[in-house]
Amino acid sequence: MPRVFTPVDISKEEKEVRKDYFDRHTPVIICEDHAREGEKFRVKVKLGTEYPHPDDPDHFINYIQLWNRETFLAEVHFAPGALGNKPGHVEVDFYIVPGPVSMNLSAMAACTKHGLWQSESR
Amino acid sequence: MPRVFTPVDISKEEKEVRKDYFDRHTPVIICEDHAREGEKFRVKVKLGTEYPHPDDPDHFINYIQLWNRETFLAEVHFAPGALGNKPGHVEVDFYIVPGPVSMNLSAMAACTKHGLWQSESR
Amino acid sequence: MPRVFTPVDISKEEKEVRKDYFDRHTPVIICEDHAREGEKFRVKVKLGTEYPHPDDPDHFINYIQLWNRETFLAEVHFAPGALGNKPGHVEVDFYIVPGPVSMNLSAMAACTKHGLWQSESR
Amino acid sequence: MPRVFTPVDISKEEKEVRKDYFDRHTPVIICEDHAREGEKFRVKVKLGTEYPHPDDPDHFINYIQLWNRETFLAEVHFAPGALGNKPGHVEVDFYIVPGPVSMNLSAMAACTKHGLWQSESR
Repeated sequence: MPRVFTPVDISKEEKEVRKDYFDRHTPVIICEDHAREGEKFRVKVKLGTEYPHPDDPDHFINYIQLWNRETFLAEVHFAPGALGNKPGHVEVDFYIVPGPVSMNLSAMAACTKHGLWQSESR
Repeated sequence: MPRVFTPVDISKEEKEVRKDYFDRHTPVIICEDHAREGEKFRVKVKLGTEYPHPDDPDHFINYIQLWNRETFLAEVHFAPGALGNKPGHVEVDFYIVPGPVSMNLSAMAACTKHGLWQSESR
Repeated sequence: MPRVFTPVDISKEEKEVRKDYFDRHTPVIICEDHAREGEKFRVKVKLGTEYPHPDDPDHFINYIQLWNRETFLAEVHFAPGALGNKPGHVEVDFYIVPGPVSMNLSAMAACTKHGLWQSESR
Repeated sequence: MPRVFTPVDISKEEKEVRKDYFDRHTPVIICEDHAREGEKFRVKVKLGTEYPHPDDPDHFINYIQLWNRETFLAEVHFAPGALGNKPGHVEVDFYIVPGPVSMNLSAMAACTKHGLWQSESR
């Protein structure tokens, strides 16, 4: 399988160029801490927090996936240009309805130039 | 190509069963009326307004696509169960950054049992 | 919905530039005339017969879909570069197992520059 | 990220039930040993060699991806029923055109019930 990139702790990284590289490729899951069974729950996945990723034809985010443990939930494919070819924080909101079992969400993002990146779990 | 379904005007439909059928399959684009060039713009696509669609293994919404005129922007594939197997309004928020040219957005949605449906344009 | 392109009869087109344009965007289904119930059946979908399509980052075939009447069967997304960035006939073989009912297959292909194209039915 | 399953050596597995489980989930890349630069090259990805996987609405292969090292090449999403709801060896042929650099291909497959599986590299 392709190597999966996992920047362990970006906040401790001191080199600006590496911080930039890690931050703009790492998917981040943004959601409430607690979800209620049977109620719609928004799960935002966003790439990076500070550094925007290019949206060029030869360098863009190809897809973002959302998983709950080993269960695939959803995947969004992007075409370059959705951000108007400007650098930006690629972002998508999924909506799920939790069942009775606790969830463990994770996201994966694929860059056309820099491979496959994983989020921390939520 | 597959036949594409276009309920012309659901509000005029009087038979409850047809209204239900049309409403829960028709993608609806929800966004601000005006977008500013270069600023991130949220485009929500939701299925139906009143009647929720099943989320069963043999009957679920397979994908939703977003287009700007003839340009494909993004597509999200769902696995059954993302809504916890309860009927719900399948929903996703895309984020795009408009360029200098005006847009004409449309959405397509595919049901595993009832084929391909189109939204009105925005 | 996006406009769908359907070149009615390429063979009658006389202008070379239009023939080229139509041919390299139109998906063609290549399969045996008869399929047997319960036996694996190969369905090749290929773009064009004479003129190859570019595989450039800003101009490539984004996806090919296979439908049986109103039923979505499969969809393949490509990243630019799979053809080594050379012009080529984008091609994929799907394998399906027909049931007791006769099929009516069609394919759709999306170009990042020239929109959505449909095949003839098989 | 989701746990990725890698049966190290199926041939040494003695328990029939485990052999079955491993075999029918593991993607296998089938292609010529040598590819020529600039010539179209067929890469078949097939699930398992002996044991067929179900094609039921609540248990099917959701997608197969093809990677070249850290570069995503293509991904095919399936809807249940493409195999006529019979157990079968899910199969797809991709066509790529190798460049001057040697390749290292791998495939990933996602089952709706049993998670994410990786192939050996070719």
